[in-house]
Amino acid sequence: MTLRDLNQPVGPEPLNDAELAALNAENTGFAQHIGMVITYCSSERLECYVDVEPHHLQAAGIVNGGVYASIGETLGSAAAIVTSGKLVVGMSNNTDLLSSVTQGRIEAVATPVHVGRSTHLWRIEMRNGDKLVAVTNLKLMILS
Amino acid sequence: MTLRDLNQPVGPEPLNDAELAALNAENTGFAQHIGMVITYCSSERLECYVDVEPHHLQAAGIVNGGVYASIGETLGSAAAIVTSGKLVVGMSNNTDLLSSVTQGRIEAVATPVHVGRSTHLWRIEMRNGDKLVAVTNLKLMILS
Amino acid sequence: MTLRDLNQPVGPEPLNDAELAALNAENTGFAQHIGMVITYCSSERLECYVDVEPHHLQAAGIVNGGVYASIGETLGSAAAIVTSGKLVVGMSNNTDLLSSVTQGRIEAVATPVHVGRSTHLWRIEMRNGDKLVAVTNLKLMILS
Amino acid sequence: MTLRDLNQPVGPEPLNDAELAALNAENTGFAQHIGMVITYCSSERLECYVDVEPHHLQAAGIVNGGVYASIGETLGSAAAIVTSGKLVVGMSNNTDLLSSVTQGRIEAVATPVHVGRSTHLWRIEMRNGDKLVAVTNLKLMILS
Repeated sequence: MTLRDLNQPVGPEPLNDAELAALNAENTGFAQHIGMVITYCSSERLECYVDVEPHHLQAAGIVNGGVYASIGETLGSAAAIVTSGKLVVGMSNNTDLLSSVTQGRIEAVATPVHVGRSTHLWRIEMRNGDKLVAVTNLKLMILS
Repeated sequence: MTLRDLNQPVGPEPLNDAELAALNAENTGFAQHIGMVITYCSSERLECYVDVEPHHLQAAGIVNGGVYASIGETLGSAAAIVTSGKLVVGMSNNTDLLSSVTQGRIEAVATPVHVGRSTHLWRIEMRNGDKLVAVTNLKLMILS
Repeated sequence: MTLRDLNQPVGPEPLNDAELAALNAENTGFAQHIGMVITYCSSERLECYVDVEPHHLQAAGIVNGGVYASIGETLGSAAAIVTSGKLVVGMSNNTDLLSSVTQGRIEAVATPVHVGRSTHLWRIEMRNGDKLVAVTNLKLMILS
Repeated sequence: MTLRDLNQPVGPEPLNDAELAALNAENTGFAQHIGMVITYCSSERLECYVDVEPHHLQAAGIVNGGVYASIGETLGSAAAIVTSGKLVVGMSNNTDLLSSVTQGRIEAVATPVHVGRSTHLWRIEMRNGDKLVAVTNLKLMILS
């Protein structure tokens, strides 16, 4: 995500609808391939959702764990980019899988655990309805 | 993956071509959505590849880290299923991202770290050419 | 920790001083070797501290990362034991190291992320003064 | 570990006995507190052991998981220091706990997974006799 229209780091004031639309429009590639839509973005919290479709499942009919790791990776990377205003590289993605999902919407919330000069740690909680189904801890390096 | 045609746990003797084809044919959903093809499968090692396409990238033009986590999750789950002959559930997916990939093929090899009665730990190394680009450590619970 | 004097799972009502003393008296071995003292214990939160001493440091004069992982492991295990009322086994300890500590007190707070029948996931945040210095995500199996 | 007597990065040629003794003599603090002794050190592999004593156990009589994380942290940090010849900082310690130990010796072997300019990833396998009991994946930042 290069965010050509968003040259400054995002602060606690959330993006407005036009800025969110621009952010989602730039979030192509794998984000789009898994159907991720960002719905809230400030330096304190990002939110997105993915509507479960047959191509998210494994053969036993539940959402493939890679989908959660991918949501965590993509939302956490967006978080580090927009809050640092710099390019970032993911270093490690630790995703705990807590409960199975067969259908409906996966909603994710990213919050910062550690925002340093050279690294960030973001925590992304994913829910299906009220149920916590997965958590990603994503560590990223901020490129200077 | 339910492996209806492969009722017994796979041993050290690798699957033949027809069995591999059956395994890939069952590996629908997200495995197919990310373009994963399994090329070797025994109780000691599984191998697969994904050819990088634009829908695997993030906006900066490199493969989204979620792709590696998804390859690790999917190949490691297949590994636990075929070697245990039982249903399994992923518990945690820890993926270290080591180097960026922009094009070509990602080749993955899964080897068992710990094969217990109630849990498995598989390690999946991913390479682009000769370069190690990511490693997943996948812990799974074996359902009885 | 076998908690012979605490036969029932601990609920949201915190332990009183006598019960805390009993809990700490049972928490021998490595917990004692690293100087850990539990100061609060309910099903919703556990707290402990370790006062930094020379034997916690590495040669460069900062606290060895293993100390944080050990605090996370020990407090998270206590948490799973007292809230489940059963024996537990640690499965994986993922500790993110965020900031260096040279002296003073490390204070830790454990909160439940997922409390299932067969597994628990606890998150342990460690601070030095106001600064978050490490976070452990500890997954445990509950033995029936 | 500052390795005042070992000013150059260690290469594939292992340390001799006098150099190993110097390395262990510098490895004070927590390494000494947990009883760790390094027995082999080259850029391709480090080895150490810890003899299990009552202060390594938790109340149920098995080795506290924090001991394995601490061995992984300390041996992996030594590995990054001696092979880079620079100061390093641990970033994340992911330790999988595979089997319980009640007595005897824990032997650990560290091998490099990724040796980059700014980060290292080391993998530390720990055994009790022939049995693999724990594995640490330790990510470190190399300070310039």
